[in-house]
Amino acid sequence: MDLEKALEEKLTQIDKAMDVYISKDHDLQKIIYESMRYSVFAGGKRLRPILALAACEFVGGNTEKVIPFACALEMIHTYSLIHDDLPAMDNDDYRRGKLTNHKVYGDGLAVLAGDALLNLAFETMLRETIAQKSNYEVQIIAMSEIASAAGTSGMIGGQVVDLISENKEIDADTLDFIHNHKTGALIRAAVRAGAILGNAKEEELRDLTKYAESIGLGFQITDDILDIIGDEKKLGKKIGRDIEKQKCTYPGIHGLDNSIKKVNELFEEAIGAIKNYGEKSQFFMLLADYLVKRQY
Amino acid sequence: MDLEKALEEKLTQIDKAMDVYISKDHDLQKIIYESMRYSVFAGGKRLRPILALAACEFVGGNTEKVIPFACALEMIHTYSLIHDDLPAMDNDDYRRGKLTNHKVYGDGLAVLAGDALLNLAFETMLRETIAQKSNYEVQIIAMSEIASAAGTSGMIGGQVVDLISENKEIDADTLDFIHNHKTGALIRAAVRAGAILGNAKEEELRDLTKYAESIGLGFQITDDILDIIGDEKKLGKKIGRDIEKQKCTYPGIHGLDNSIKKVNELFEEAIGAIKNYGEKSQFFMLLADYLVKRQY
Repeated sequence: MDLEKALEEKLTQIDKAMDVYISKDHDLQKIIYESMRYSVFAGGKRLRPILALAACEFVGGNTEKVIPFACALEMIHTYSLIHDDLPAMDNDDYRRGKLTNHKVYGDGLAVLAGDALLNLAFETMLRETIAQKSNYEVQIIAMSEIASAAGTSGMIGGQVVDLISENKEIDADTLDFIHNHKTGALIRAAVRAGAILGNAKEEELRDLTKYAESIGLGFQITDDILDIIGDEKKLGKKIGRDIEKQKCTYPGIHGLDNSIKKVNELFEEAIGAIKNYGEKSQFFMLLADYLVKRQY
Repeated sequence: MDLEKALEEKLTQIDKAMDVYISKDHDLQKIIYESMRYSVFAGGKRLRPILALAACEFVGGNTEKVIPFACALEMIHTYSLIHDDLPAMDNDDYRRGKLTNHKVYGDGLAVLAGDALLNLAFETMLRETIAQKSNYEVQIIAMSEIASAAGTSGMIGGQVVDLISENKEIDADTLDFIHNHKTGALIRAAVRAGAILGNAKEEELRDLTKYAESIGLGFQITDDILDIIGDEKKLGKKIGRDIEKQKCTYPGIHGLDNSIKKVNELFEEAIGAIKNYGEKSQFFMLLADYLVKRQY
């Protein structure tokens, strides 16, 4: 299997759908669609939607049904980045080498573009569920999974603790909380929602959840590591930002060597969770390798 | 019927449920629940949830089923106020006589509290729908109705046009767009969602929708009028803010006399839409009178 090609295929499928879901319905407020599209089509890797599609494939489900949910995950991820970049939060001018949303559209529209993307995520899932006229229960459970992961018990909870911990010494438990919630929760929900929509068996859902938890944390620690030893050109952003902002990171608390060791352990755990599924685990095997062993 | 008593009863029912829905699940992020509760329990009239419950009663449905949706509507309304008050938007220090959310918790937490309330609205509706294990279709349609009304084709669309029209001369059509979207859409959705959850007949839904559209616009024009001739003590806020901020308002474009005339017309239209339903329209009759004929 060619991983790059498989990723590209899924990305194209997602972007095509997203282009339809985010389109203006009235000239007066067209600026908000422009602003939403600016951030959505800013070169994201589409990790969460790709995970959702792949999890559905893994359990032998119909991925067509997953598309609206996959796009919703990306909308939620994008809104969280727009709000995170605001002066009121991280105050970042650049993301993925491009000006952040509020630097282009102003703080007010950036707040609204984030709100609009979060709202559109649910609009899209609900509207497409009604259009499909089937399987309401499975789709409601998948939506609920995504909603909980995006909220105060998940992603927002992580952002809150991250925000109130700025310029403070935090302990290892608090950092784990931030990583598992801010990034981990939505990655976990992406895999679980895809599997649920594909009618996963109980043990498949359990093993995929374990896989998602491991790569979610591994992905985040890798991000922390790359901010110290990464290649700015490959990353499309400056390194050393975490230290500059006195952000607590995994290498900051546990040291660089222990962080690299932890990433490798998580990689083994991820592989271990799915290795007994034979051929169909190939995509997830390659993806784990790609995600947690990036550029170092 | 004693309107005040009926309103109070519904409000108590809603606040009791909301108290359960917004409660902390982890000590680390407890500040976000505090901040959400600060704005949710800041003395709102609970107009949208009351409308949802009343619409369900009107069509003879079981209002227990409507509670999570009613609370979701209030969460969405509250989040929109928190974000609207931010320095990036309206930059208001007070709301209902209390400091605004960001003045108490800071801009970053206020952004997140708004996000969290919007997200919690969907979490609550989805979780309770799963718990009830029945009527998935009706509940998905009601959720979709609320989601669309809250998004770029509804409330957010209105906020966007309001924001980009600041300090600009706008025409009557643009002002109508703002009023119908920023406030009207969610009021309309509240009535429709309540009616849909109560299994409304087609003509009941049509007539209640007409009622909601009339009181929605009437309510907003009344707000504009009260900002000119209202009683600051009764309103719990300063008057003259719209003029100070050079906001375009209905009286600003059409004059005060025409605005009062328009409110009365809308009141007649609202009454006209439901007057043939006899006894069961009593609550909505009194409510229309209360809403569009406030304090002048």
